[in-house]
Amino acid sequence: MEDEFAFISKITPEKTYQKSLIRGVGDDAAVYSGSDELEQVICVDTMVEGVHFRRDTLTPFQIGKKGLAINVSDLAAMGAIPTYYLVSIAVPSSWTEQELTEIYRGMKELADIYQMDLIGGDTVSTHDKLVLTVTAIGSIERGRAIYRDQAKPGDQVFVTGYVGGSAAGLELLFEKGVDGIFTEQEQLLVTSHQEPLPHVEAGRIFSKVDKRISLNDVSDGVASEAHELAEASKNRFVIEAEKLPIPQAMNTYSRQKQLEFALFGGEDFVLIGTVPKEDVADLASLFNKKDLRFSVIGFVEEGEPGVFLKEDQQVKKLEKHGYNHFQKRG
Amino acid sequence: MEDEFAFISKITPEKTYQKSLIRGVGDDAAVYSGSDELEQVICVDTMVEGVHFRRDTLTPFQIGKKGLAINVSDLAAMGAIPTYYLVSIAVPSSWTEQELTEIYRGMKELADIYQMDLIGGDTVSTHDKLVLTVTAIGSIERGRAIYRDQAKPGDQVFVTGYVGGSAAGLELLFEKGVDGIFTEQEQLLVTSHQEPLPHVEAGRIFSKVDKRISLNDVSDGVASEAHELAEASKNRFVIEAEKLPIPQAMNTYSRQKQLEFALFGGEDFVLIGTVPKEDVADLASLFNKKDLRFSVIGFVEEGEPGVFLKEDQQVKKLEKHGYNHFQKRG
Repeated sequence: MEDEFAFISKITPEKTYQKSLIRGVGDDAAVYSGSDELEQVICVDTMVEGVHFRRDTLTPFQIGKKGLAINVSDLAAMGAIPTYYLVSIAVPSSWTEQELTEIYRGMKELADIYQMDLIGGDTVSTHDKLVLTVTAIGSIERGRAIYRDQAKPGDQVFVTGYVGGSAAGLELLFEKGVDGIFTEQEQLLVTSHQEPLPHVEAGRIFSKVDKRISLNDVSDGVASEAHELAEASKNRFVIEAEKLPIPQAMNTYSRQKQLEFALFGGEDFVLIGTVPKEDVADLASLFNKKDLRFSVIGFVEEGEPGVFLKEDQQVKKLEKHGYNHFQKRG
Repeated sequence: MEDEFAFISKITPEKTYQKSLIRGVGDDAAVYSGSDELEQVICVDTMVEGVHFRRDTLTPFQIGKKGLAINVSDLAAMGAIPTYYLVSIAVPSSWTEQELTEIYRGMKELADIYQMDLIGGDTVSTHDKLVLTVTAIGSIERGRAIYRDQAKPGDQVFVTGYVGGSAAGLELLFEKGVDGIFTEQEQLLVTSHQEPLPHVEAGRIFSKVDKRISLNDVSDGVASEAHELAEASKNRFVIEAEKLPIPQAMNTYSRQKQLEFALFGGEDFVLIGTVPKEDVADLASLFNKKDLRFSVIGFVEEGEPGVFLKEDQQVKKLEKHGYNHFQKRG
């Protein structure tokens, strides 16, 4: 599983011609320049203590880093270059000043990878649980943004990295807590849950290559994200179980558990999408050159929008969410 | 006090050449076009139930409308044209689906005035209190954004509307609750707290006129906002008590209460700023033509950054926040 983290050191932000921050500090709003050549991409995501994370599953540093990563992943799924972010935190008095600083430090560590600037935000008090809302902004060359509705029958379905590791890591954290002692293999899974790295470089490859691509990021599990692609493009998706790239660190898990985590776990923050069959070799080669993973995991066919799992020559319908549905069938 | 609401019906959004939403629905991020002629302005603000509002002071509709208004006011204080907004809500199970719909309806009512589009968001569950985070985006002609640091000795300090009414309205709401029976005069104050209208048209006048202007919006009271301008420009501000435009509906209040609410109450969402003395007549005339209020309330002089109140020929230092400081001196 080591190779899935190998690319981290190789990330080099693109030239920042895309960016021109005019004023970001001292006023309540930030000003940055637009450009005729670029489109702006924007998204917002909220993480709530006790719902999206617990203090025994993420450190404050990791809460910040992951809060930004979730948003950068949304930008990556459009093919955009991350440029700016704004942070709004509602913080209860049970959190110390130092923990709050750690949240910002976590965000900054991720932001620095992409040379993103923090250009605004709001810190307010709340009575109960911490709520972190991040707004992320990116740029993309005009007409190059990638959407979800481009899949056509005959296309191949791909992912850009391992799936299932984050859910396995979360299960380990539930068992042992954030200060637990983990084996080396376990730690890889735990880290993939605590500090996921969005696939910005992969998104940029898709935005530059002249192919018909649909794209989404795996925040809610392969089944749910494939459903979104299927519904947007009004086609039927078939996922081939044996092709799903499961982290080696999960080799000791039962096959059913591996598939549950990959299909319904979520928070892997790899990209999932489709590309015409004849373009697969070209894309795989582009990814290979950058030592990035590109795995075909299924195909698109005509039919009612929906997602099916093909396993051992059997095909069964995959619900959008949930272990229960899956277990009933297993 | 009626005249302070008279301008509402006259708001006509500027031509929307500034806007070009490419894709805002169906993907997790929205895409809109940039332009060489325009700069982008962005801000984010969070309102927490029990901290920034209570269910007995604002209806769900008003929570939404005010949540967006706070942000649009930040855009107005830069001179920008509001264009888009994103909404993130962490909502506890004690709020009904209908109440949530009302929050969005409140935002939409304000957004429609400016032809702003809702282009994204996130609705998540939380265990305790509702947290509403709005991100607002605006456009402004290149180089025309207005900042806080432009004040110079000799400048006049102005506000673009009545101050103190929102705090008076809040006090009435604390007394009688959101379903209370209010006199006509009281209702004007209550409405100015519950449904403030940001001064976008005023901001646009400032951005178009070729004068040296500093600008801020009154979210935290005149004292606090004047402090921000004084600190940004490194000058001393003097507010003249008798020039503060207090709503007529507060005529029955003691002079001390009027000043407390105007100086420390906040949430009036008028604009406060400075302009060279020789430009006051021109600006007043521009505002008059649009039936908008423009009141000189003081002046800038050389000295340590700070804010002073001149009343009955006495000058006393104004702290940034708080009734207590003021009462001790009063």
